[in-house]
Amino acid sequence: MGTVTAPWKQLLLNALDSNSALKHYSFFQLATIGSNGRPSNRTVVFRGFEENSNKMRINTDCRTHKIDDLKHCPFAEICWYFTDSWEQFRINGRIDVVDGLCLDPLKLQQREKAWFASSVKSRLQYLGPNPGLPSLGEQSSSESSLDPSAGPVDAFCLLVLDPDQVDYLNLKINERLTFSSRQNINGEKFWSSERINP
Amino acid sequence: MGTVTAPWKQLLLNALDSNSALKHYSFFQLATIGSNGRPSNRTVVFRGFEENSNKMRINTDCRTHKIDDLKHCPFAEICWYFTDSWEQFRINGRIDVVDGLCLDPLKLQQREKAWFASSVKSRLQYLGPNPGLPSLGEQSSSESSLDPSAGPVDAFCLLVLDPDQVDYLNLKINERLTFSSRQNINGEKFWSSERINP
Repeated sequence: MGTVTAPWKQLLLNALDSNSALKHYSFFQLATIGSNGRPSNRTVVFRGFEENSNKMRINTDCRTHKIDDLKHCPFAEICWYFTDSWEQFRINGRIDVVDGLCLDPLKLQQREKAWFASSVKSRLQYLGPNPGLPSLGEQSSSESSLDPSAGPVDAFCLLVLDPDQVDYLNLKINERLTFSSRQNINGEKFWSSERINP
Repeated sequence: MGTVTAPWKQLLLNALDSNSALKHYSFFQLATIGSNGRPSNRTVVFRGFEENSNKMRINTDCRTHKIDDLKHCPFAEICWYFTDSWEQFRINGRIDVVDGLCLDPLKLQQREKAWFASSVKSRLQYLGPNPGLPSLGEQSSSESSLDPSAGPVDAFCLLVLDPDQVDYLNLKINERLTFSSRQNINGEKFWSSERINP
């Protein structure tokens, strides 16, 4: 069950470290395919890696379009540009959508952890009006109150991206590396890397 | 032939203005659909609007994967997050690929203009080794020389995105607007907007 640490993970941890002075250092763009067959792209917040894993966590609202997108096509690509160190990571993989209806107790536990790891202010957003629907001039959700010890609400959804291809570009030294994975018969992923032209 | 200025364009021009102190203010993420059916996402540079138009220009190398992507599916979505003003623009539209084989003289002229508008250093990249192919340790293209008066090389490609849907989010005031377009029988686009829940 041991996970081999992917060779790109240390590069990403270094980039996070060297850009951490910026408020937006944990923001990246997540591309999916809409049910209309067109690409879709939005900024989301990185919520860390799963423990002892290369899998990446994102919190989202079940009522957003990206959930429909992912039910239609589970593949996504992160594009993460670090504005201080001029590094770009393009991370392609499959996303697992973990909502309150999930039947796997381990995944439900991860969802609960993600809920309590986010601020009460962030949690309040999930009690607000349906994102993307016409605004009826309702009072903002900051008027609502939330018991800080209460578990995740229905709208709260954990996304877990399992990378299988990573493209790394460093614009300061003009170097580019590509990382590819292969799975063996036990489901373990093995990574290889290659230097490619920028 | 007059183009109605889209209502989101002024918002975008304002955002460019208020973020122009940052080196990366003109960078955005462009999502396409790969020929393998998976989403693809990368950072590119905004090269301005076409004259008297809402169409947006990007320069790229014909040898990159995004060209294959766009030949397979011409739709793309820009996600542009302005890190200083906390504004996000998601711009969905169709991309016209203008390479040296294009038969439209007006488009070829636009491509030439885009070539001369970019720095000689930028132009040199198009003489370098094939992007994305294994690096053979060749000397960087900065060793090559380029006649500054010479026109676009074969690898140079102009992309023109014609927006038909824009989603605007302002995180400072927590407001979101959606802009949709409809074309009339003469091909003119008309825009409508609506306030939606963030």
